[in-house]
Amino acid sequence: MTDRHTRERLVTAEVEASFADAPPRLREVMSSLVRHLHAFAGEVRLTEEEWQRGIDFLTRAGHITTATRQEFILLSDVLGLSMLTIGINAPEDEKATESTVFGPFFVDDAPRIPQGGDIAQGAKGAPCHVSGTVRNTSGAAVPGARIDVWEADEDGFYDVQYEGDRRAGRGWLTVNDDGSYHFWSVLPSPYPIPHDGPVGELLEAAHRSPMRPAHLHFRVTAPGYATLVTHIFVSGDPHLSSDAVFGVKDSLIVDATEHPAGRAPDGSDRDRPYYSMTFDIVLAQEIRP
Amino acid sequence: MTDRHTRERLVTAEVEASFADAPPRLREVMSSLVRHLHAFAGEVRLTEEEWQRGIDFLTRAGHITTATRQEFILLSDVLGLSMLTIGINAPEDEKATESTVFGPFFVDDAPRIPQGGDIAQGAKGAPCHVSGTVRNTSGAAVPGARIDVWEADEDGFYDVQYEGDRRAGRGWLTVNDDGSYHFWSVLPSPYPIPHDGPVGELLEAAHRSPMRPAHLHFRVTAPGYATLVTHIFVSGDPHLSSDAVFGVKDSLIVDATEHPAGRAPDGSDRDRPYYSMTFDIVLAQEIRP
Repeated sequence: MTDRHTRERLVTAEVEASFADAPPRLREVMSSLVRHLHAFAGEVRLTEEEWQRGIDFLTRAGHITTATRQEFILLSDVLGLSMLTIGINAPEDEKATESTVFGPFFVDDAPRIPQGGDIAQGAKGAPCHVSGTVRNTSGAAVPGARIDVWEADEDGFYDVQYEGDRRAGRGWLTVNDDGSYHFWSVLPSPYPIPHDGPVGELLEAAHRSPMRPAHLHFRVTAPGYATLVTHIFVSGDPHLSSDAVFGVKDSLIVDATEHPAGRAPDGSDRDRPYYSMTFDIVLAQEIRP
Repeated sequence: MTDRHTRERLVTAEVEASFADAPPRLREVMSSLVRHLHAFAGEVRLTEEEWQRGIDFLTRAGHITTATRQEFILLSDVLGLSMLTIGINAPEDEKATESTVFGPFFVDDAPRIPQGGDIAQGAKGAPCHVSGTVRNTSGAAVPGARIDVWEADEDGFYDVQYEGDRRAGRGWLTVNDDGSYHFWSVLPSPYPIPHDGPVGELLEAAHRSPMRPAHLHFRVTAPGYATLVTHIFVSGDPHLSSDAVFGVKDSLIVDATEHPAGRAPDGSDRDRPYYSMTFDIVLAQEIRP
């Protein structure tokens, strides 16, 4: 019998060799995945019970996942793989707005709203006016850029986490010819990621918080530009240094300024106090492979 | 902006640090998992589309998994993680029978059969008499050891892959006082692992065969001994060198001897040709942690 570590290396080599006839990129990805998966198991001396717990974890993650609950994205998020992948694929241009996690709560059928419209559509929370510009790295306006935004309500839930098909706290609009945009929403609130499933159990076992700091999701697309997926975070949030999904970047933290009821900057009359945030977006050129 | 690779290392460090307050073993396992998962993504420069395909793969694997179909075990098997984990946990004693993959087809409610009984219970295939002994590494019999066996029929399907709750091609028995055992079964046939799901798609994309060489599963348990999970493989099978799950070990390949109809070695009369296989099992002492 060869020694234990030699035998383990032989298993890894045999599995890598089984991908020898795969198309080049698949072979590259699978060989690396196999090497690192095996190195992990060898390094921690994975027990059979732990292996079984891993199988059970993935099984339960699969069974809790639906069209509106994506436990595998949550898993990727809490292991930092989502942020790492975003970093790997981020534009090189340092003038461009930074990216952060996409998250599991985007949906394709959000309503279009006009400039100055309100995405709240019944989502609970303090009114919040969001305005800014979309420019390219040369400083030129990007008219017609599409901005998708989505957020949780003040109870920390996205619309898709409620019963029924209501769309609230999400919408999209197109940027004006001068690059400006503005819309109403609700002030973002901190909330826990869904933690009633296996990912929540993992966080609890690890004594990690499921909380995310308050944020508003943006996806900005325009022909010729790299798609930007990001958030704005609200300055002063107590969870900024312990985001469960590692999404915070300093450049994405903005002030939410409180205002008394009255005439808002967009000319509308507000019968209750409201907030305002400003977010100027810079898109990088699309890199064609 | 710090350079790209430095930024990536900072993400990994931040995620590792998030497990600092976890219980020691969980921290050890998760830190290693995070390091290797991130090293994999960095090494292959994982694209966002590939990340999304990974999420979709796991989602579909979860959704096809049921009480009788375990896609995550198949995935572990075809990536060699199952065999590696078995190797990591194998007894050090080189006199003990070698282990191989458990596979996804074991069930808890197999029928008990008497010595010399037939596990086929309607499973199609040529009759096959299996006999041998169960001893410890000192050569002493292990009376009362429990042997669970299970196998596919000649069409390559386990009972649980058919509609209904029929139990066939599986059973358990206890070893005689002199360490001997024998039972009837059907001659094992080669078969593909279930390949109508995401794991099958992966194998097809990689130009890998889903076939497993013919085998009969064994699990042998006795108080004071390490549980043995293994197979016997049938010599001459064309798939012995390309097992989809990397389970073959030379020491587990046995001859299936063909016999004409007539009086069998166990004294029974056989009205059709049959096969016989011999498998002497050696159990290692249980290692108490």
